[in-house]
Amino acid sequence: MPSPITTTFTVTGMTCGHCVAAVAEELETIDNVTGVDIDLATGAVTVHSSSPVDPAQFAAAVDEAGYAVAP
Amino acid sequence: MPSPITTTFTVTGMTCGHCVAAVAEELETIDNVTGVDIDLATGAVTVHSSSPVDPAQFAAAVDEAGYAVAP
Repeated sequence: MPSPITTTFTVTGMTCGHCVAAVAEELETIDNVTGVDIDLATGAVTVHSSSPVDPAQFAAAVDEAGYAVAP
Repeated sequence: MPSPITTTFTVTGMTCGHCVAAVAEELETIDNVTGVDIDLATGAVTVHSSSPVDPAQFAAAVDEAGYAVAP
């Protein structure tokens, strides 16, 4: 069983648990993503995946949820 | 066609559009409620109903959504 890949980034604009859920839900639709952890207070997002994911896919998913990845 | 009854109150704790949607969704499940308007910036909630509604029902619905009616 391969070790999962972990990617971290910061998402801006989340203000409540519904925001967190919306972002997590979109990220979890990406192929090979196995888990998502989000810290509302800091905006820190940790995505676990079974293989590498193009960062543009993360940014697109976050955008789809209505938020943005911090530059 | 009877004129609708309008009830206004303030809900605290809403921080985003998801919060607004959650509160509106719960209020709309109350019998005789025909419409809900919510202003996120102020927390002002306006409920239209076809007959009088016990204010405790509004408070219970807001609580169910995870928020509170301001005293």
